[in-house]
Amino acid sequence: MAKNDREKSVRTTSAGPIGIGLIGTKFMGRAHSTAWSKASQFFDLKRNPVMSAVAGRNPDETAVFATKWGWKASTTNWRDLLTDDTVELVDVSTPNHLHAEMSIACLEAGKHVACEKPLAGTLADAKRMVLAARAARKKGVQTFVWYNYRRCPAVAFAHRLVRDGRLGRIFHVRASYLQDWGGPDTPLLWRFQGDLAGSGAHGDLNAHIIDMARFITGDEVTEVVGSIEETFVKERAVIASSGGEISGKGAKSSSSGRKSGKSTVDDAVLFLARFKQGAIASFEASRLATGNQNRNNIEINGEKGSIKFDFERMNELEWWDHTLEPKLRGWSRIMCTDAAHPYAGHYWPAAHLIGYEQGFISQAADICAVIAGGSPVVALPDFEDAFKTQCVLEAAIRSARERRPVPIRELDKF
Amino acid sequence: MAKNDREKSVRTTSAGPIGIGLIGTKFMGRAHSTAWSKASQFFDLKRNPVMSAVAGRNPDETAVFATKWGWKASTTNWRDLLTDDTVELVDVSTPNHLHAEMSIACLEAGKHVACEKPLAGTLADAKRMVLAARAARKKGVQTFVWYNYRRCPAVAFAHRLVRDGRLGRIFHVRASYLQDWGGPDTPLLWRFQGDLAGSGAHGDLNAHIIDMARFITGDEVTEVVGSIEETFVKERAVIASSGGEISGKGAKSSSSGRKSGKSTVDDAVLFLARFKQGAIASFEASRLATGNQNRNNIEINGEKGSIKFDFERMNELEWWDHTLEPKLRGWSRIMCTDAAHPYAGHYWPAAHLIGYEQGFISQAADICAVIAGGSPVVALPDFEDAFKTQCVLEAAIRSARERRPVPIRELDKF
Amino acid sequence: MAKNDREKSVRTTSAGPIGIGLIGTKFMGRAHSTAWSKASQFFDLKRNPVMSAVAGRNPDETAVFATKWGWKASTTNWRDLLTDDTVELVDVSTPNHLHAEMSIACLEAGKHVACEKPLAGTLADAKRMVLAARAARKKGVQTFVWYNYRRCPAVAFAHRLVRDGRLGRIFHVRASYLQDWGGPDTPLLWRFQGDLAGSGAHGDLNAHIIDMARFITGDEVTEVVGSIEETFVKERAVIASSGGEISGKGAKSSSSGRKSGKSTVDDAVLFLARFKQGAIASFEASRLATGNQNRNNIEINGEKGSIKFDFERMNELEWWDHTLEPKLRGWSRIMCTDAAHPYAGHYWPAAHLIGYEQGFISQAADICAVIAGGSPVVALPDFEDAFKTQCVLEAAIRSARERRPVPIRELDKF
Amino acid sequence: MAKNDREKSVRTTSAGPIGIGLIGTKFMGRAHSTAWSKASQFFDLKRNPVMSAVAGRNPDETAVFATKWGWKASTTNWRDLLTDDTVELVDVSTPNHLHAEMSIACLEAGKHVACEKPLAGTLADAKRMVLAARAARKKGVQTFVWYNYRRCPAVAFAHRLVRDGRLGRIFHVRASYLQDWGGPDTPLLWRFQGDLAGSGAHGDLNAHIIDMARFITGDEVTEVVGSIEETFVKERAVIASSGGEISGKGAKSSSSGRKSGKSTVDDAVLFLARFKQGAIASFEASRLATGNQNRNNIEINGEKGSIKFDFERMNELEWWDHTLEPKLRGWSRIMCTDAAHPYAGHYWPAAHLIGYEQGFISQAADICAVIAGGSPVVALPDFEDAFKTQCVLEAAIRSARERRPVPIRELDKF
Repeated sequence: MAKNDREKSVRTTSAGPIGIGLIGTKFMGRAHSTAWSKASQFFDLKRNPVMSAVAGRNPDETAVFATKWGWKASTTNWRDLLTDDTVELVDVSTPNHLHAEMSIACLEAGKHVACEKPLAGTLADAKRMVLAARAARKKGVQTFVWYNYRRCPAVAFAHRLVRDGRLGRIFHVRASYLQDWGGPDTPLLWRFQGDLAGSGAHGDLNAHIIDMARFITGDEVTEVVGSIEETFVKERAVIASSGGEISGKGAKSSSSGRKSGKSTVDDAVLFLARFKQGAIASFEASRLATGNQNRNNIEINGEKGSIKFDFERMNELEWWDHTLEPKLRGWSRIMCTDAAHPYAGHYWPAAHLIGYEQGFISQAADICAVIAGGSPVVALPDFEDAFKTQCVLEAAIRSARERRPVPIRELDKF
Repeated sequence: MAKNDREKSVRTTSAGPIGIGLIGTKFMGRAHSTAWSKASQFFDLKRNPVMSAVAGRNPDETAVFATKWGWKASTTNWRDLLTDDTVELVDVSTPNHLHAEMSIACLEAGKHVACEKPLAGTLADAKRMVLAARAARKKGVQTFVWYNYRRCPAVAFAHRLVRDGRLGRIFHVRASYLQDWGGPDTPLLWRFQGDLAGSGAHGDLNAHIIDMARFITGDEVTEVVGSIEETFVKERAVIASSGGEISGKGAKSSSSGRKSGKSTVDDAVLFLARFKQGAIASFEASRLATGNQNRNNIEINGEKGSIKFDFERMNELEWWDHTLEPKLRGWSRIMCTDAAHPYAGHYWPAAHLIGYEQGFISQAADICAVIAGGSPVVALPDFEDAFKTQCVLEAAIRSARERRPVPIRELDKF
Repeated sequence: MAKNDREKSVRTTSAGPIGIGLIGTKFMGRAHSTAWSKASQFFDLKRNPVMSAVAGRNPDETAVFATKWGWKASTTNWRDLLTDDTVELVDVSTPNHLHAEMSIACLEAGKHVACEKPLAGTLADAKRMVLAARAARKKGVQTFVWYNYRRCPAVAFAHRLVRDGRLGRIFHVRASYLQDWGGPDTPLLWRFQGDLAGSGAHGDLNAHIIDMARFITGDEVTEVVGSIEETFVKERAVIASSGGEISGKGAKSSSSGRKSGKSTVDDAVLFLARFKQGAIASFEASRLATGNQNRNNIEINGEKGSIKFDFERMNELEWWDHTLEPKLRGWSRIMCTDAAHPYAGHYWPAAHLIGYEQGFISQAADICAVIAGGSPVVALPDFEDAFKTQCVLEAAIRSARERRPVPIRELDKF
Repeated sequence: MAKNDREKSVRTTSAGPIGIGLIGTKFMGRAHSTAWSKASQFFDLKRNPVMSAVAGRNPDETAVFATKWGWKASTTNWRDLLTDDTVELVDVSTPNHLHAEMSIACLEAGKHVACEKPLAGTLADAKRMVLAARAARKKGVQTFVWYNYRRCPAVAFAHRLVRDGRLGRIFHVRASYLQDWGGPDTPLLWRFQGDLAGSGAHGDLNAHIIDMARFITGDEVTEVVGSIEETFVKERAVIASSGGEISGKGAKSSSSGRKSGKSTVDDAVLFLARFKQGAIASFEASRLATGNQNRNNIEINGEKGSIKFDFERMNELEWWDHTLEPKLRGWSRIMCTDAAHPYAGHYWPAAHLIGYEQGFISQAADICAVIAGGSPVVALPDFEDAFKTQCVLEAAIRSARERRPVPIRELDKF
C-alpha cells in the first residue's frame, strides 16, 4: 500500500500548511480544535491548517487534550507560541479579560490572531487591540474574531438576501439570544464572577446578535435609546473547587457547609437602538429565559421582504417574499442545506443537517483562505470590525446605568 | 308546530333580556353584532342579550346594517339610545376620540357601557371616563372595555397558569403586536390621521398587549425605561373619498391626480418596562413588520415555567414546565380547545378550532353574566382597569419624546 | 327609530328567502343552525335562508333548541317538514343509517336536500339516494352533501392551485384523519355501535379525506390496493342511559354495576389506493391516534409543487413551489385569510382567524347561491358526487375483509 | 514542548487501538471517515479506532481520499485488507450488491465487519451473510450494520421512552422517508439502475424506517398486508460518463446527443403492515415527494403517549404524554441535546445542535466499545438483526408484485 505522507513538520512560510497555535482547552478549545482538524477535509484549501501546538494552564489536562484532539505539541506557557516557528496563527480561546494581552503579544510577534468573541472585556482593551491590529496589518499580519454564527449557512444566506436587495429598505431588527441555564439553582460559576467573565449575558450573548444584525443588514448602530441591565439572582451558592469551568474564585474558602456569594454580572440586558439607515431595533440577552436553551434569533422586516432565524433550528431560514401576490405570500422555511447555499455544499447532501461545529469549521476554512491570499465565502470580522460591536455593547451598558440615550459617536473615538 | 316566541319587546329591568344599543357599524360594529347575536346560543345565560338598536352616521348604511345583523331598530343619532327604554347597555364601538363623550353621556343616562379599547384617545379623556365610571358605579351602573384577547381560551388559560403558581417568579415579559398592512403603498386612511385615530400602532396594538401582559401576569408596570416612536412613512397618497374606513379627511380636496398627505401617527412604537414584582419587559407594535399580518404574541418566562402565545395560532398555547426532569422538558403545544380550558367547552369538540369572533362572543356572554349578578369566567376589564393600560401607553410616548425613563406614578394621579 | 322588518313569514317560491327545515339537534344540528343564521350576514345573497322549522326526537329538547338557535317552529315528527310550505330545503343532520329514508322522502316531496356526510350508511342506501336525486333533478330539485372541509379557505385554495396547474403531474396523495378520543377508557357510545353508527372511524373520518383528496386533485380513485381494518378496543364499558349522544342501545339493561359491551365498529382503517391519472395514495382514519385530536391532514406532491394541510391549523396552507430556484425553495406557510383567498374576504381582516363553523356558514351561503340560480365559490358535492366517495369507502372495507385489491369498477354500477 | 506520540503503528490485538480498514470512498466513505476520526475525541474509549487503510477503485482518487481524510494507507484492491495485520475491522461502504461478497470474505479472514445498510441487495445474499456471521461469531468475530439513525439522540430517546413503558400499548406506527431529488429532470444515475443499485427508494429509504420502527417499538413486523411499488419516471436522460456517483452503465455508449434509458428501480414503495404485539403500520419511501428533501419521519401512538420524529429536525423529539390531565396535554418539542439524552452529552452544550455525521460518530464509538468488550449506549444491529429488516423489505416487494398479503414467516426460514 502507498503510505500517506501528510504529517510533515511545518514552518511558517507563505506556502505549505499553516501552523496553528491554540491557547485555551475548554469549551471553545474543543470547538476550535474540531474546526482546525476538519477544515481541509470539507474544503479544498490552498494552504491547509496544521495543528502545531496548544497551550493550557494545567499540564496534565493540556497534554491529554493535545493527544485527544490531535495537537502535535502542548505547553503550559502560552508565550511559547510566540517563538514557535511552526506557528503562523494563534487562536486565542481564553476568557475575555485575557484577549488583549495575548492578542497584542501575538501580533507583535508577527503571528496572525484569531480571537474569541467578544473582542475584549473592556472598551479600553478593545481599543488597544485595534491599535495593535492596525500596526500589525502594515506588516501583513491579520486579525480575525470568532463570531461563528456568520458562517451558519442560513445566516450567510440572509446576509446575501439583504445585499441583493431582496428585503428593500429595512424597518425592523428584532434580535434576542435567550438561554435558561442561569436559574437560581445554578451555583456561582466563573461566568457569574465579573472579574473573571467581564460581563454576563451581555458580553456572551448580545455580542453575537449585535454582530449578526450588523452582518446581515450591512448597517451600523448609531444610538442606544434605552436599556435595562438586570441581575435577577444576586446571591448564588458557592461550590467546592473542582477545577474546570464550574469552579469560582470565591469557592476556595468554602470547605464546610453551603455558602453563597455575590453574582457580579448581569443575568439579562435588553436595549433599543437605531441604525444609520433608519431601522429601529431591539436586542435582548438573558440566561434566565426559561424554555429557551440556546435561542439565538433574529427577525428583520424590510419593505420587500423579511427573514427570521433561530439557532435552535440553525439549518433553516424563514423567508417572506413581499413582492409575491398576496394570496401566495407566506413564511417560507428554507432548509439552507442545498449546494446553492453558502457553505452547505461543502458538507452533506440536501437536508442532511449540519450542527454547531460547522460554524467553526467554515470559519477556520475561511481564515486559511484569507491567509493564503484568497477570499472568505462571506465577510470575516477582524478586530476593526469587532470593535464596532464592542461599542454597541458599551453603549447599552452606559444607557442602562446612566438612564439616558447613548450615541455611538461618544465611544468610538481613538 | 309550536311557535317560537322569543322575539318579544324588551324593557330595562333587572330580569329578562338585556337590551343592547350599539354605536358604530364598521369593523368593530360587525364583530360586536356577531357577539351579541351568538352569546346566548353558546352560553346558558340568566339574562340573554337582545339587539335593540344600532346607531350609525349614514342613514342608508345603518339601516342595511341593522337588517343584516339583526338589530331591531336603527338611528343616525346616537343620543337616541340614551332615552331608549329598551336599551340597558350601550356598546361604544367608535374611534378612540369619541369614547369619552359617548361613554360619559351613556353612564349619566344610567346605561351600562361596554367601550371599545383603548379606553380613550388621550389620558385626560381617560381620567374623565374613570371619574364618570366611579360615579355611575355607585348607582349600580357598570363599565366594560373590549380587550377581547383576554377571552381567547389560550390567553385565559395562561392567566390561570400564572395565578396557580405554575410559572413561579416571573423574570421576562416579551410582547409584540406586529402587522404589515401599513407599507408605503398604503394610502392615507383615517387610521394614519392623528385627529381621527388618536394614535397609530401604539393605541391600536400596544394597548392590547399591555392589557394582555397585565392580565396574564397579574402584575403592573411601574416604569417605562426607554422608548422609540417612529413614523417610517411620512407621506402617503391621498385617496378619493369613497366613504367607509378607507377615506381620510385630507382626501376631500383631491379630485384630480394623485396627491399625498402627511401621516400624523406612529407606524411603530417599541418600549422597555419594569413590572412591580421584578419582571423586565419589552413591548412593540408595528404596522410595517412585513410578514406579520396579525402577530399578537407574548412570551413570559418564570422560574418554574414559561408560556408563549401567538394570535396567528390563537387556539394554541405553548407551555414549558421547568419542574420536569431535564430530559422531558420541551415546549408543549397545547390546543386550548378542550372542555377543561376556559370558554372552549362552550363551542365545538376538541381541536375543532374557534376563530376571532369567539373572543367577542365570550366577552358578550361574560358581560351579560355580570349584569345579571354573576361572575365572568376570567376578569373583565372595567374603566378603572383599562386606565392602567392607558397610563402605560402614555408613559411610553412621553419616554420616546422626552428621551428619558418615565415612572407610571407621574401619570396616574387624579 | 326605523323598525327592522326582516322577520316575515316565508313561502316556497323562486324568489325571496329560502325556508330551511332541519332534522337533527345534536352536534351537526348546532353547527348547521349556526350556518343558516350567519350566512346572510357574511355573504350578500340573492335569496337569504330563513330558519323555518326544526325536527328532533325529544319534544322538550327540540323546543329549547329551536328557541336557542332561532328556528321559528319545531316538531318531533320530521315528516311534518315534507308538507310545510315554508320549507324549501331540508337539512338532514341525522346519523348515517337514516339519511336514505329521510332524503328520499324529502326529494319526493319536492324539497331540496342538504344531507350530512357520508352520503349513506351502506352502498345500497347510497345507490337508492342517487336514483332519487336523479329523478328529482329533472324536476329542478337539488341535492347537496355537507362535506364542509371543502369550504375551508386553505382547502379551496389548494384545489385552485391544482386546477391552475401549479402542482403539475401529481405523484403522491397522503391523507389521514386522526383523532384520539376513542381510547380504552371511552365507554360504549352510540358511535361504537355498528347498528346506530354504520361504521366507526372509516365512515366518520375517511369519508372526509377521500372527499378532500378527490376535490383538491380533481381526480378519482380507481383501485384500493390494500387495506387494514382494526378494532383495537373490542369491549367497552356500558354507561347508564342519560340520553343524548353518549348513551348506547346496550346501556338500557345496565342498571347495576359496570358492564361492558362489544364495540362493533372499526377504530381505525388504513388503505392504499391508485388514482386514475397515476397518483398513488394512502388514507388513514383512527380514533386512537393518541396526540391527534382532530388532525385532518393531507399532503399532495406534484411535479411542480406540493401542498400540505392540517385542520388543527385550518387557516394555513403549506405550499412548496418547486419552480423556484433551489436556494429559495421552502415550505411556505400561507395564512389563507386574505381577501384574495376563497371565502376569507367574507369574514375578518387578514390573519384574524376563522374557525370550524365557517366551513358550514360558507357552505350554507353556497347552497343558497345555487338555489337562487348562481354558482358556488368552489364546487358543491351533490349525491352523485358523494356516491363516488362512498364507493371508495366500500372498496376499502372489502379489501380489508377479503384481503385483496378491489377496483372501484366492481362497485359503481347501477 | 512535549511531543504528542499518538501516531504509532497498530497491530491487531485485543488491546490498544482498533485498526480500521474502509472499502468505499464515496458519500458513505466520507461519512464513515469522519466517524472514525472523531469517535475518540467525543467519547472516552477503552480502545480507540485508528484509520489504517482505505480501499477504492480509482487509484488517484483513493490516494487523494486517504490523504484528505487521514487514512494511513490506501489500495485499489480491497482484498489487501484481508491480509493486513493492522486491520481489525473492515467497514464495507459499497453499493448493496457488493455487501455479501466483501463481508463474507472479511469475516472468513477473521475481521470484524461493519457493513452499510441495507444488509444486502437480495434476500439470498442476506441469508448467506447471516450464516457467515453465525460462523464468525463462534470465533469471536463480530458484525455491525450502519443503521445510523438509531444513534440520533432523539431516536434513541424515543426507544427508551417505549422501553420504559411511557407509551403503553402501541396502536399505530406511521413511518415515511421522503425525498424529492428524483424528479423527471434527474438523469439516469447509477441509483436508477437496478443491477447497480439493487432497488430504488425501497432499499435505500424504507430500510431505514423499518429498522427505526423495529428499534423504537422493540417489536417485529409479522405481515405486509398490501403494497404499492411505483416507477413514476420510466425513462431518464443518459448522461455522459464523468465518473463518480452520477454516471451509469447505460451512459457509456452515449457520446452524441441526449439519449434516454430505462429506469429499472422503484421511485416509491408504500406498504401496510402488522406488528406482533398488535400495532398497525404504514411505511412509505419516495424520491419524488416534492418538498421533502430528507424527511425521515416516524410517529408512534400508544395508549399512554406518543412520539414523533422528523430527521429534518433531527435534534428534536415530539412527545405527547397522555397521562397528563387533559388541559395540560400537548405535543412537547424536546430538544434532545441535554446531557440526560443518549449521546448528546458527548458533544456540545444544550441546544448547540448536532448534525448528520454525529449518527456515524456515535455508532463508531459504540462499535469500538463493543469490540473492547463493553456495551453500546443503545442496541447495535448485527447481521442477524438487519436480516429481519431485509425480510420486511422483501415481503413488501412480493406483496406489491403478487397483489396479496405476505406473512414474514414465508421468508425468514433458513
